[in-house]
Amino acid sequence: MNPEPYFRLHAFICTNRRPDGHKRGSCAARGAEPLRDYLKARTKELGIAGVRINAAGCLDRCELGPVMVIYPEGIWYNFHSYEDIDEILDSHLLKGGRVERLMLRPEDGPPPKG
Amino acid sequence: MNPEPYFRLHAFICTNRRPDGHKRGSCAARGAEPLRDYLKARTKELGIAGVRINAAGCLDRCELGPVMVIYPEGIWYNFHSYEDIDEILDSHLLKGGRVERLMLRPEDGPPPKG
Repeated sequence: MNPEPYFRLHAFICTNRRPDGHKRGSCAARGAEPLRDYLKARTKELGIAGVRINAAGCLDRCELGPVMVIYPEGIWYNFHSYEDIDEILDSHLLKGGRVERLMLRPEDGPPPKG
Repeated sequence: MNPEPYFRLHAFICTNRRPDGHKRGSCAARGAEPLRDYLKARTKELGIAGVRINAAGCLDRCELGPVMVIYPEGIWYNFHSYEDIDEILDSHLLKGGRVERLMLRPEDGPPPKG
Protein backbone atom coordinates (compact mmCIF):
# COMPACT_ATOMS: atom_id res chain seq x y z
CA MET A 1 0.00 0.00 0.00
CA ASN A 2 1.21 3.48 -0.78
CA PRO A 3 1.96 5.76 2.19
CA GLU A 4 0.06 8.99 2.72
CA PRO A 5 1.32 11.75 0.42
CA TYR A 6 4.10 13.91 1.80
CA PHE A 7 2.84 16.95 -0.13
CA ARG A 8 -0.85 17.35 -0.94
CA LEU A 9 0.02 19.02 -4.24
CA HIS A 10 3.48 19.10 -5.78
CA ALA A 11 4.04 21.46 -8.71
CA PHE A 12 7.08 21.25 -10.95
CA ILE A 13 7.86 24.18 -13.22
CA CYS A 14 10.35 23.69 -16.00
CA THR A 15 13.09 26.30 -15.84
CA ASN A 16 15.35 24.68 -18.42
CA ARG A 17 17.25 27.11 -20.66
CA ARG A 18 18.57 26.25 -24.10
CA PRO A 19 20.78 28.48 -26.23
CA ASP A 20 19.03 31.14 -28.28
CA GLY A 21 17.96 29.79 -31.66
CA HIS A 22 17.49 26.16 -30.56
CA LYS A 23 14.69 24.71 -32.66
CA ARG A 24 12.65 23.49 -29.67
CA GLY A 25 13.17 26.65 -27.65
CA SER A 26 13.00 26.31 -23.86
CA CYS A 27 10.77 27.28 -20.97
CA ALA A 28 13.33 29.72 -19.54
CA ALA A 29 13.72 31.41 -22.93
CA ARG A 30 9.91 31.70 -22.98
CA GLY A 31 9.86 33.48 -19.62
CA ALA A 32 9.39 30.70 -17.05
CA GLU A 33 11.74 31.93 -14.34
CA PRO A 34 10.02 35.11 -13.05
CA LEU A 35 6.65 33.33 -13.21
CA ARG A 36 8.03 30.43 -11.20
CA ASP A 37 9.48 32.84 -8.62
CA TYR A 38 6.11 34.60 -8.39
CA LEU A 39 4.21 31.31 -7.95
CA LYS A 40 6.57 30.20 -5.18
CA ALA A 41 6.40 33.55 -3.37
CA ARG A 42 2.60 33.84 -3.60
CA THR A 43 2.08 30.26 -2.42
CA LYS A 44 4.14 31.11 0.64
CA GLU A 45 2.40 34.46 1.22
CA LEU A 46 -1.03 32.86 1.00
CA GLY A 47 0.07 30.07 3.36
CA ILE A 48 -1.42 27.33 1.19
CA ALA A 49 -0.93 24.19 3.27
CA GLY A 50 0.58 21.06 1.81
CA VAL A 51 1.67 22.61 -1.48
CA ARG A 52 5.26 22.50 -2.72
CA ILE A 53 6.48 24.52 -5.69
CA ASN A 54 9.63 23.16 -7.35
CA ALA A 55 11.82 24.06 -10.26
CA ALA A 56 12.58 21.15 -12.58
CA GLY A 57 14.80 20.36 -15.51
CA CYS A 58 13.41 19.89 -19.01
CA LEU A 59 9.92 18.33 -18.94
CA ASP A 60 10.19 17.65 -22.69
CA ARG A 61 7.17 19.68 -23.77
CA CYS A 62 9.35 22.62 -24.74
CA GLU A 63 7.24 23.71 -27.72
CA LEU A 64 4.30 24.34 -25.38
CA GLY A 65 6.29 26.16 -22.70
CA PRO A 66 6.44 27.56 -20.21
CA VAL A 67 4.89 24.46 -18.68
CA MET A 68 4.27 23.02 -15.23
CA VAL A 69 2.86 19.73 -14.03
CA ILE A 70 0.97 19.33 -10.75
CA TYR A 71 1.04 15.94 -9.04
CA PRO A 72 -0.37 13.57 -7.90
CA GLU A 73 -3.10 14.58 -10.37
CA GLY A 74 -0.74 14.91 -13.33
CA ILE A 75 -2.36 18.12 -14.55
CA TRP A 76 -0.24 20.12 -17.02
CA TYR A 77 -0.54 23.85 -17.62
CA ASN A 78 1.11 26.38 -19.79
CA PHE A 79 1.14 29.97 -18.64
CA HIS A 80 2.36 33.30 -19.91
CA SER A 81 1.51 35.95 -17.32
CA TYR A 82 1.15 36.73 -13.64
CA GLU A 83 -2.62 36.61 -14.22
CA ASP A 84 -2.32 33.01 -15.43
CA ILE A 85 -0.35 32.12 -12.31
CA ASP A 86 -2.91 33.85 -10.06
CA GLU A 87 -5.67 31.81 -11.67
CA ILE A 88 -3.78 28.52 -11.17
CA LEU A 89 -3.12 29.51 -7.56
CA ASP A 90 -6.70 30.39 -6.80
CA SER A 91 -8.60 27.81 -8.82
CA HIS A 92 -6.31 24.80 -8.52
CA LEU A 93 -3.91 25.09 -5.59
CA LEU A 94 -6.38 26.77 -3.22
CA LYS A 95 -9.75 25.42 -4.36
CA GLY A 96 -8.80 22.11 -5.95
CA GLY A 97 -10.37 22.95 -9.33
CA ARG A 98 -8.90 23.16 -12.82
CA VAL A 99 -8.02 26.06 -15.10
CA GLU A 100 -9.40 24.54 -18.27
CA ARG A 101 -8.20 27.28 -20.59
CA LEU A 102 -4.55 26.65 -19.63
CA MET A 103 -4.59 22.86 -19.38
CA LEU A 104 -2.50 20.71 -21.71
CA ARG A 105 -3.71 17.29 -22.79
CA PRO A 106 -1.47 14.50 -24.06
CA GLU A 107 -2.78 15.11 -27.58
CA ASP A 108 -1.50 18.69 -27.44
CA GLY A 109 1.89 17.08 -27.99
CA PRO A 110 4.62 16.49 -28.55
CA PRO A 111 4.27 12.68 -28.41
CA PRO A 112 6.17 11.53 -25.29
CA LYS A 113 9.48 9.91 -26.16
CA GLY A 114 9.82 7.38 -23.42
CA MET B 1 -12.17 14.76 -15.34
CA ASN B 2 -8.41 14.48 -15.41
CA PRO B 3 -6.79 13.74 -18.78
CA GLU B 4 -4.75 10.59 -19.34
CA PRO B 5 -1.25 10.91 -17.86
CA TYR B 6 1.40 12.27 -20.19
CA PHE B 7 4.09 10.16 -18.51
CA ARG B 8 3.23 6.82 -16.93
CA LEU B 9 5.84 7.38 -14.22
CA HIS B 10 7.60 10.68 -13.58
CA ALA B 11 10.61 10.63 -11.26
CA PHE B 12 12.11 13.78 -9.78
CA ILE B 13 15.56 13.59 -8.26
CA CYS B 14 16.73 16.44 -6.08
CA THR B 15 20.06 17.77 -7.31
CA ASN B 16 20.11 20.85 -5.11
CA ARG B 17 23.52 21.86 -3.77
CA ARG B 18 24.07 23.93 -0.66
CA PRO B 19 27.40 25.31 0.53
CA ASP B 20 29.61 22.92 2.49
CA GLY B 21 28.81 23.05 6.19
CA HIS B 22 25.12 24.00 5.82
CA LYS B 23 23.26 22.42 8.71
CA ARG B 24 20.67 20.66 6.50
CA GLY B 25 23.21 19.46 3.95
CA SER B 26 21.95 18.89 0.42
CA CYS B 27 21.28 16.06 -1.99
CA ALA B 28 24.10 17.09 -4.33
CA ALA B 29 26.56 17.24 -1.43
CA ARG B 30 25.37 13.73 -0.53
CA GLY B 31 26.15 12.42 -4.00
CA ALA B 32 22.88 12.78 -5.95
CA GLU B 33 24.23 13.95 -9.29
CA PRO B 34 26.10 10.88 -10.60
CA LEU B 35 23.27 8.64 -9.37
CA ARG B 36 20.72 10.79 -11.20
CA ASP B 37 22.83 10.68 -14.38
CA TYR B 38 23.06 6.90 -14.06
CA LEU B 39 19.30 6.51 -13.54
CA LYS B 40 18.55 8.66 -16.58
CA ALA B 41 21.06 6.83 -18.79
CA ARG B 42 19.93 3.35 -17.72
CA THR B 43 16.24 4.21 -18.18
CA LYS B 44 17.05 5.22 -21.74
CA GLU B 45 19.25 2.17 -22.39
CA LEU B 46 16.56 -0.18 -21.12
CA GLY B 47 13.93 1.62 -23.22
CA ILE B 48 11.43 1.78 -20.37
CA ALA B 49 8.32 3.21 -21.99
CA GLY B 50 6.43 6.10 -20.46
CA VAL B 51 9.00 6.93 -17.81
CA ARG B 52 10.59 10.37 -17.47
CA ILE B 53 13.56 11.07 -15.19
CA ASN B 54 13.95 14.70 -14.14
CA ALA B 55 16.26 16.72 -12.00
CA ALA B 56 14.50 18.97 -9.51
CA GLY B 57 15.33 21.74 -7.10
CA CYS B 58 15.22 21.24 -3.34
CA LEU B 59 12.48 18.79 -2.35
CA ASP B 60 12.86 19.87 1.29
CA ARG B 61 13.77 16.48 2.72
CA CYS B 62 17.47 17.31 2.69
CA GLU B 63 18.34 15.44 5.87
CA LEU B 64 17.23 12.19 4.23
CA GLY B 65 18.97 12.80 0.90
CA PRO B 66 19.70 11.96 -1.74
CA VAL B 67 15.97 11.65 -2.36
CA MET B 68 13.64 11.19 -5.30
CA VAL B 69 9.87 11.13 -5.62
CA ILE B 70 8.02 9.12 -8.25
CA TYR B 71 4.60 10.34 -9.38
CA PRO B 72 1.69 9.90 -9.78
CA GLU B 73 2.12 7.41 -6.91
CA GLY B 74 4.02 9.84 -4.68
CA ILE B 75 6.55 7.22 -3.62
CA TRP B 76 9.73 8.64 -2.07
CA TYR B 77 13.09 6.90 -1.98
CA ASN B 78 16.49 7.63 -0.70
CA PHE B 79 19.44 5.95 -2.35
CA HIS B 80 23.18 5.82 -1.94
CA SER B 81 24.63 3.56 -4.61
CA TYR B 82 24.32 2.35 -8.18
CA GLU B 83 22.91 -0.88 -6.72
CA ASP B 84 20.09 1.10 -5.08
CA ILE B 85 19.31 2.76 -8.41
CA ASP B 86 19.34 -0.60 -10.21
CA GLU B 87 16.85 -1.96 -7.71
CA ILE B 88 14.51 1.04 -8.12
CA LEU B 89 14.79 0.66 -11.90
CA ASP B 90 14.03 -3.02 -11.92
CA SER B 91 11.47 -3.32 -9.14
CA HIS B 92 9.59 -0.05 -9.51
CA LEU B 93 10.08 1.52 -12.95
CA LEU B 94 10.07 -1.75 -14.88
CA LYS B 95 7.84 -4.01 -12.79
CA GLY B 96 5.63 -1.51 -10.95
CA GLY B 97 6.57 -2.78 -7.50
CA ARG B 98 8.15 -1.03 -4.54
CA VAL B 99 11.62 -1.11 -2.98
CA GLU B 100 10.47 -1.21 0.62
CA ARG B 101 13.93 -0.96 2.14
CA LEU B 102 14.54 2.43 0.46
CA MET B 103 11.08 3.96 0.82
CA LEU B 104 10.52 7.09 2.87
CA ARG B 105 7.26 7.60 4.73
CA PRO B 106 5.93 11.01 5.85
CA GLU B 107 6.81 10.08 9.44
CA ASP B 108 10.46 9.71 8.46
CA GLY B 109 10.44 13.51 8.42
CA PRO B 110 11.07 16.29 8.41
CA PRO B 111 7.52 17.57 8.94
CA PRO B 112 6.49 19.27 5.67
CA LYS B 113 6.49 23.05 5.99
CA GLY B 114 3.69 23.99 3.69
